[in-house]
Amino acid sequence: MAKQFLSSVFLLTITATAAAEPPRVRARVVGVAPGMLQPGPRNAITDVAGVAVGHVTRIEGADVRTGVTAILPHAGNLFQDKVPAGVAVANGFGKLTGTTQITELGEIETPIILTNTLSVPQAADALIGWTLAQPGNENVASVNPVVGETNDSRLNNIRRRVITSKDVLAAISAASTGAVTEGAVGAGTGTVAFGWKGGIGTSSRVVPGTHGEYRVGVIVQSNYGGSLRVLGTEVGDALRPAGAPAKTRPSSADGSIMIIVATDAPLSDRNLKRLAERSFAGLARTGSAFSNGSGDYAIAFSTALSVRRTPQRRAAASATEDVPNDRMSDLFVAAADATEEAIYNSLFMATPMTGRDSNGDAVVVEAVPIEMVRRRLP
Amino acid sequence: MAKQFLSSVFLLTITATAAAEPPRVRARVVGVAPGMLQPGPRNAITDVAGVAVGHVTRIEGADVRTGVTAILPHAGNLFQDKVPAGVAVANGFGKLTGTTQITELGEIETPIILTNTLSVPQAADALIGWTLAQPGNENVASVNPVVGETNDSRLNNIRRRVITSKDVLAAISAASTGAVTEGAVGAGTGTVAFGWKGGIGTSSRVVPGTHGEYRVGVIVQSNYGGSLRVLGTEVGDALRPAGAPAKTRPSSADGSIMIIVATDAPLSDRNLKRLAERSFAGLARTGSAFSNGSGDYAIAFSTALSVRRTPQRRAAASATEDVPNDRMSDLFVAAADATEEAIYNSLFMATPMTGRDSNGDAVVVEAVPIEMVRRRLP
Amino acid sequence: MAKQFLSSVFLLTITATAAAEPPRVRARVVGVAPGMLQPGPRNAITDVAGVAVGHVTRIEGADVRTGVTAILPHAGNLFQDKVPAGVAVANGFGKLTGTTQITELGEIETPIILTNTLSVPQAADALIGWTLAQPGNENVASVNPVVGETNDSRLNNIRRRVITSKDVLAAISAASTGAVTEGAVGAGTGTVAFGWKGGIGTSSRVVPGTHGEYRVGVIVQSNYGGSLRVLGTEVGDALRPAGAPAKTRPSSADGSIMIIVATDAPLSDRNLKRLAERSFAGLARTGSAFSNGSGDYAIAFSTALSVRRTPQRRAAASATEDVPNDRMSDLFVAAADATEEAIYNSLFMATPMTGRDSNGDAVVVEAVPIEMVRRRLP
Amino acid sequence: MAKQFLSSVFLLTITATAAAEPPRVRARVVGVAPGMLQPGPRNAITDVAGVAVGHVTRIEGADVRTGVTAILPHAGNLFQDKVPAGVAVANGFGKLTGTTQITELGEIETPIILTNTLSVPQAADALIGWTLAQPGNENVASVNPVVGETNDSRLNNIRRRVITSKDVLAAISAASTGAVTEGAVGAGTGTVAFGWKGGIGTSSRVVPGTHGEYRVGVIVQSNYGGSLRVLGTEVGDALRPAGAPAKTRPSSADGSIMIIVATDAPLSDRNLKRLAERSFAGLARTGSAFSNGSGDYAIAFSTALSVRRTPQRRAAASATEDVPNDRMSDLFVAAADATEEAIYNSLFMATPMTGRDSNGDAVVVEAVPIEMVRRRLP
Repeated sequence: MAKQFLSSVFLLTITATAAAEPPRVRARVVGVAPGMLQPGPRNAITDVAGVAVGHVTRIEGADVRTGVTAILPHAGNLFQDKVPAGVAVANGFGKLTGTTQITELGEIETPIILTNTLSVPQAADALIGWTLAQPGNENVASVNPVVGETNDSRLNNIRRRVITSKDVLAAISAASTGAVTEGAVGAGTGTVAFGWKGGIGTSSRVVPGTHGEYRVGVIVQSNYGGSLRVLGTEVGDALRPAGAPAKTRPSSADGSIMIIVATDAPLSDRNLKRLAERSFAGLARTGSAFSNGSGDYAIAFSTALSVRRTPQRRAAASATEDVPNDRMSDLFVAAADATEEAIYNSLFMATPMTGRDSNGDAVVVEAVPIEMVRRRLP
Repeated sequence: MAKQFLSSVFLLTITATAAAEPPRVRARVVGVAPGMLQPGPRNAITDVAGVAVGHVTRIEGADVRTGVTAILPHAGNLFQDKVPAGVAVANGFGKLTGTTQITELGEIETPIILTNTLSVPQAADALIGWTLAQPGNENVASVNPVVGETNDSRLNNIRRRVITSKDVLAAISAASTGAVTEGAVGAGTGTVAFGWKGGIGTSSRVVPGTHGEYRVGVIVQSNYGGSLRVLGTEVGDALRPAGAPAKTRPSSADGSIMIIVATDAPLSDRNLKRLAERSFAGLARTGSAFSNGSGDYAIAFSTALSVRRTPQRRAAASATEDVPNDRMSDLFVAAADATEEAIYNSLFMATPMTGRDSNGDAVVVEAVPIEMVRRRLP
Repeated sequence: MAKQFLSSVFLLTITATAAAEPPRVRARVVGVAPGMLQPGPRNAITDVAGVAVGHVTRIEGADVRTGVTAILPHAGNLFQDKVPAGVAVANGFGKLTGTTQITELGEIETPIILTNTLSVPQAADALIGWTLAQPGNENVASVNPVVGETNDSRLNNIRRRVITSKDVLAAISAASTGAVTEGAVGAGTGTVAFGWKGGIGTSSRVVPGTHGEYRVGVIVQSNYGGSLRVLGTEVGDALRPAGAPAKTRPSSADGSIMIIVATDAPLSDRNLKRLAERSFAGLARTGSAFSNGSGDYAIAFSTALSVRRTPQRRAAASATEDVPNDRMSDLFVAAADATEEAIYNSLFMATPMTGRDSNGDAVVVEAVPIEMVRRRLP
Repeated sequence: MAKQFLSSVFLLTITATAAAEPPRVRARVVGVAPGMLQPGPRNAITDVAGVAVGHVTRIEGADVRTGVTAILPHAGNLFQDKVPAGVAVANGFGKLTGTTQITELGEIETPIILTNTLSVPQAADALIGWTLAQPGNENVASVNPVVGETNDSRLNNIRRRVITSKDVLAAISAASTGAVTEGAVGAGTGTVAFGWKGGIGTSSRVVPGTHGEYRVGVIVQSNYGGSLRVLGTEVGDALRPAGAPAKTRPSSADGSIMIIVATDAPLSDRNLKRLAERSFAGLARTGSAFSNGSGDYAIAFSTALSVRRTPQRRAAASATEDVPNDRMSDLFVAAADATEEAIYNSLFMATPMTGRDSNGDAVVVEAVPIEMVRRRLP
């Protein structure tokens, strides 16, 4: 999270529209495909089998521009069949819940919910209620809800806190293992990245493993600042929205990003934490300023059955599978590259959004002009 | 936090009552006074000027035994005039919110709320609402609520989640800089420590400083297990409640503790984190097992005006005061000793409590028999 | 580590001798036996099969009072067959090498060496040379030596830095899986704890495991301050050496401790780190002040073959064994209790030592008067 | 650090020479100037007043290709007048000494030495000796030497461990506050980055501060792998040295980097740690793979007199200066941009180097072909 005060000056200037832009496409369609590893069939976090994603989008009246995105590691009872996980923090100006327990025990036991900064408690409360109500959890008296956020107050009247438990449960119910809707949806409905409309983006990579292949999938909620680079080519200032002032300070925009990394590789929680950390390399390549006010977090989990923490495995010493340190490097590259592409997708698939700034004035945040970006690439 | 499943076997046995026990007294009254430093006038966290504590206690029907305790670092606008702070984790099986931002920025910007495990989101939501509503915070779009918890499900039907925003606001409103009620009140209403009734306890120490004296105050919410030692004398098993079975495993009881440390010494956030860590030495001396299921956390903050993060100090480089590393050791001892005594106070001031266990059967948790403990001391 | 300046005032007063003290005995012999778990047959870290300990003691002339202690996790090629490990820091004013790599990779690949503060590099250099020279390591180009220390400058002319590679190699060569010599030997030759002669101590515990039993062994190099408590009974000031001044400040003595924890339980590196952290509970119970100048570290490793990181396991994903979080609590208690007893053993087995203080004056540090301590216990 | 085994296959292929390359120039000379902030007059870490850098280069016979680089925060007695500092770890497969004490106390008290992996202890020993011998340190009994490393075993017979205390003292003596020699010198003599000759590089940025300007300077020892990007333009594989095989795996090369960040801004140690972390964003932009075997570390310190930890400031509470969190973002961007440019400089200023691989065969590592890179930039 970040923005403590609405940056109205910044937003008021973004009012022109990109006239003849063609329909939004994913980054790879126009040749933006970082790294040498190939994506999975959907180029989405759902390429990791069993992972499901659901959105609830709240666009209402002039000033509600927010939502919820739910990521489910698997379709079973997550509290009973926990998944190993690690969390990494690039800059901790954010409200991600559940981190100390993830670190201590190396696992998560609920879906991961993304939403806006001030709605984190509502989402956490909903996760607890949802978990208590799951069949088989009748005796559960402790739940560690995992809720991340970014601050959508540039387009959304965040102080109204409109997100309710119902929205969160609806996002979980809507979760699908198929294609993932990107752009200005769910928790990305009101987010802004590099002054352009940000939002939800996803990507994946396939990594040759010791025994068969592994998959790494990433989903992001982009809402941060810096100077946008696409495959290294400076975009931010060169193509700034019509009317926007030239950048005068290197770190003019605050903001945040939540990054979720899924893999079917059987990793220890320590190596999942390391995997999560690699996503920040992808983030850095897009031009993030990692500014003081940014809440930049990554969570990685493994869906492999051979590491799942079932009641049996939690009751007695047993065998688990483990990819050794010396075989992690390709997975690390996959996490970085998929994060970079997921961020591009969050921008490329986003559509312009109108909202209200802190003075109640109408604001438009433009979408990145894809064709213009494409022409600038080498 | 901890207990994932109601430990009914453990509780069912605790049914006898301590017949002729005299009224509850604080530990120091019967000579339990750890360390060579002296306490402040109230022997409470409120000996640190400006710190206020408020409770809301919910005892309703047969199975509601819970509550809220609010700790306010000062009476001003906490969001505008933040206090430096550090957080320490002895075992992270808990739901304390706000930790990554405290660590990143070295400060807290809300009251600290303690409650039960499953009510943390309600309390966090209330803190956000309270902060947004404070005069001067009209433009605030991001709040980092700090809410800790322990699991009172041995006496409280925690799954009912009865704590509401109203309770939290009432605890804040009730906060006073005077004497602190201890025992089975507020967030300690339904907690159990070492098989005895636990709860809220507080203590303080005065430390000779470089320029005048410093004060260190501690408040705890005790709910953990192990083998109770009072000033080193084994108490837990020897005086176990009538009917309770002899202990057969070294770590039979799970549980948690929240420890809040306040000081008026002008400390950096790094040294506040170190101060928080020392509270675990006091915790260890009482016989804590630091078991897997325990959520053992400490937060320390400084009330010194010379380190307060006012709008002016947050806007430009300025002078702050700093106690150097080489002058920290006495403060460290103060934090450990005051924590030890605060824990004793939480037990000594607690009164027996009836509640319901997970099967709906009535349960009584006894208070530590002070006179019997006293007689065992050297 | 700690002491930056020789605390001559403190030492000059400790000059009387305890006349008729009987021979030194281990703590358990006089009934000091913390906790309800039983020790292994040797009550030593070598109860964990395969662990070997070796000492080199340097007592020369008036002012050389130092040495080296080597702990070998197993008798094989440690670099090729690494052991999972975790490191914990209670107060980081010390020079322990290798910590970031242990944390990143969760393993150690050399023996662990303990020595004095200023001889750490000599010991690390020796460990590198020893590793390069092991058969099978002909192509090794990177070694992570693990060397811990405490500061023996109260009795030893530490600035002479007399420890050489030869001493370290001799300690490794001397390592035995049998009984462990305690007291003023090896790295404990010149150390002082609570104003009494400290040194090397060891202890162990047997824990009922899921499948058979597990063992936890601890060895310490004690050199820290505070107010000595034996099983909770205050000893430090009451029995202070003849002529020593009454304590006037709660944290008068600085100092440090190195704690090594071995187990044959098949633990993940995360749970080994947690196990290491529990040793600080045992340390706290002995009255440690955890002062600013103290370097208080613990390293835990597992000797279980089922988690050993052999070339095969480091080359491809494979099965490992894992004790789950929910089965850790008894092991945690074992680590705390064995640490507490190892510290007592380091004091009880230590004999008085003469040396030179920073002014070149002769100093005597007495041994704890065991019989007097025994009489004070309940 | 990293490379555990000499990657002979990788190196044997790099044998062609870049025929008509013009003389080596710094990156900025050919237009490679990341970010919008301006460098200081020397575009070097020595733009931060008082910082001095010295090299000792050891090129001897066929297989000695190594050296030492010393960075001095100021010209005074560093042990007496310590500087606040923070350390950050991107991947901890390395041997950097002193980290736990830097983290605990927030300061460094010796010069920072960079050398090869297996010579770290020799360098640490030399730093201790140097510190003990400084006038005014006659009573010092504890020193925390800070020594970083990367593994130069691709060109250097690292197992010979030729670096001695004399080399380290010579590097300290040679330290100058003027221009900094870059490329294949000092600790960068034998390093390789992205398959090209790496080494020492430096850069700086000027940041408008609250009161006047601040400077941020960076020096790196580059020795890592990935896929080189210059200002985002892919270089690594496209321009691979003649005869080198096409890259077939995304993370083919291991390696490490040490990054030292100096600033004259009066920062707390917490904000220095955050500043250090930002250097990894610059590292990521150059295409680092952050592979398992890489030891990627950054240390940041402040030279501001208003935060220097003099004997007076270490003896009693006193005023220090502090740049608040909200004013850190431009400094963060400066650290990232200067690191990126320092890495380019380390490559652009490096000259081809011959050495011996692990089979004793001659190896040549080429320098990046600057003119070819320049032509590829947009």
